[in-house]
Amino acid sequence: MSDALSRRFIAAQEIVKNASEIALQMRPSPGGPQGSLKHAQDWLTETDGKIETYISKAIQSLFPEDGFQGEEKGKTRSGSLRWIVDPIDGTSNYARGRNRWCISLGLMEENVPTLGIIAAPCVNEFYTARLGKGAFMNEKPIHVSDVKDPKISMIELGWSHVSKIDEFLKNAEAILKTGAMIRTLGSGTMSLVDVASGRLDGHFEMAINLWDVAAALVLLREAGACISPFLENGGLHQMTPILTAAPGISDILSKTLHMSLS
Amino acid sequence: MSDALSRRFIAAQEIVKNASEIALQMRPSPGGPQGSLKHAQDWLTETDGKIETYISKAIQSLFPEDGFQGEEKGKTRSGSLRWIVDPIDGTSNYARGRNRWCISLGLMEENVPTLGIIAAPCVNEFYTARLGKGAFMNEKPIHVSDVKDPKISMIELGWSHVSKIDEFLKNAEAILKTGAMIRTLGSGTMSLVDVASGRLDGHFEMAINLWDVAAALVLLREAGACISPFLENGGLHQMTPILTAAPGISDILSKTLHMSLS
Repeated sequence: MSDALSRRFIAAQEIVKNASEIALQMRPSPGGPQGSLKHAQDWLTETDGKIETYISKAIQSLFPEDGFQGEEKGKTRSGSLRWIVDPIDGTSNYARGRNRWCISLGLMEENVPTLGIIAAPCVNEFYTARLGKGAFMNEKPIHVSDVKDPKISMIELGWSHVSKIDEFLKNAEAILKTGAMIRTLGSGTMSLVDVASGRLDGHFEMAINLWDVAAALVLLREAGACISPFLENGGLHQMTPILTAAPGISDILSKTLHMSLS
Repeated sequence: MSDALSRRFIAAQEIVKNASEIALQMRPSPGGPQGSLKHAQDWLTETDGKIETYISKAIQSLFPEDGFQGEEKGKTRSGSLRWIVDPIDGTSNYARGRNRWCISLGLMEENVPTLGIIAAPCVNEFYTARLGKGAFMNEKPIHVSDVKDPKISMIELGWSHVSKIDEFLKNAEAILKTGAMIRTLGSGTMSLVDVASGRLDGHFEMAINLWDVAAALVLLREAGACISPFLENGGLHQMTPILTAAPGISDILSKTLHMSLS
C-alpha cells in the first residue's frame, strides 16, 4: 500500500500543478464578481467545472480503481481509496480576481484522510502532506504556531452563504472577547492551511463541506493542530462545523466556541 | 510644477520597489507573530523602521526641500510638497509571514493627495496614481466595480487595535443585513486599494491614520470611488473613520454606516 500511496502522492502533485495553470489562465481580472450564483453569495465560475473535470479525468486515467468525489459533480466513482477535490476553494475571491483561493485535492483511505495537496498559485504556495510523513509548504516543513496567549493571537471566523447573521456575530463577539485579532478571509481551505503553517492560531467555520477540508485535515494533523471531530460529527455527508487551533490556545477556543478539540 | 511632480512620481516608484526588496528579504517565516507590541495587538517589526528610514533618506537626498511624515517617526521635515509613508501597512500580517501587506508612499501638495505609490510584493502587485492622470495596477488602468446590488457585493469591515467590540459588531451586523459578503483582512491600505481595483465594493474602517490612506486616496479618486471626507473630518491630525465605496452601492452603505460620501 505504501508504494501505491507514493505513486498517487507524486502523480497528484503534478495534476494539481497543471490545474493551477488552468486556473491562472482563466482567472478573472479584478472587478465585480464573474460567474453565476448557486445560492445567495455562493459563486460558481466556469473554472470550477473545468478544473474538477480535468482532475477527475487525470486521476481516472492513472488510477481507474480509485473513487472520486468533487464539489461540483458529487461522488462519480467509488473505491477504497477515494479522491476528494475542491476545484476552486474561495470561489467568491477567485471570481473577483482576488488572490486568496486554492485548489485542494485529498485522498482518503476508506474514511481516513491520507494525502493532501493544496496549491495557492497567486501567492506561489504549494502545500503537501502525507499521513505520518509531515506537512510541507514549498517543500519546507510547516507546523502550527506556539502562541499561548489569545491577546497576541489571530483567529479566523469563516463566513459562508449559509451563515446565520446572529450566530456569526455571537461567535465574533466570543472571539474578540478573548483579546484575539479577528479575520474573515473568504477561503475555508486556505484558512485551515494557515493554521497548519502557524499564520493563524485558530479557525472556526460554522458549516463546511468535506471537499473543503479533506486535503487540509492531513496537513493540519501532520502540522500538530488540534482539530474538532469533523468526520465523526457528520462531515462525511453534510456541512458540519469545524474548529482547528494551535495547541497553546486550543483550550480557550474550545470553551469559547463550545466545540471539543482532539 | 508638473515637471516637479513627474520627477517625483518616477523617483518614488523606484524607491518603493527598492523598499519592497528590503521588506521581502526581512519577511518572517510563517508562524506566530515576530516583532514587538506598541499597544495590544498593534505590532511593530524591525522592518517598519528600516523601510521608513530608507525611504526618508532616499527622498531627502533627491528632494531635500520636501516635507516628510512617516508612521514610525512622525513629521521629520516640512514642505509644501510632503511625502507620507506607511513603511509596512498590515504589520500584523507581515509579522506572521502572511501575504497581505504593502508599502505605501503618498505625496501631498499642501493638503491635497497628489501622488500614490503602493507595492504589495507578495502578490506581485504595484499600484500607481497621479491626480488627474488615472490609477494603475502593474501599469494597467484600474477602476471601481460596477456592482449595484448589495446582495452580490463584498464589503470589508476593518478591525484594528483601537476597535471597540460593540461598535465593530454593530457595524458588522449592519453590513451583513444588506446581504453583502463580509471580509476582515488586516491591511487597511490594501483594502482601499481593493476598492479602487473593484475587488471590494466597499470598505469601512472606524479609525485609520493619514499614513494608511495618503497614497490610496489618490488611487481611489482616480479609480472612481466614493470617499467620505476623511481629511475634512480630522484625518490630517488624528485617527479618523473612513468609508469608501463603488458608486453603485454608495447610497446604501452611506445610510447603513451613517457616514456621508462624496
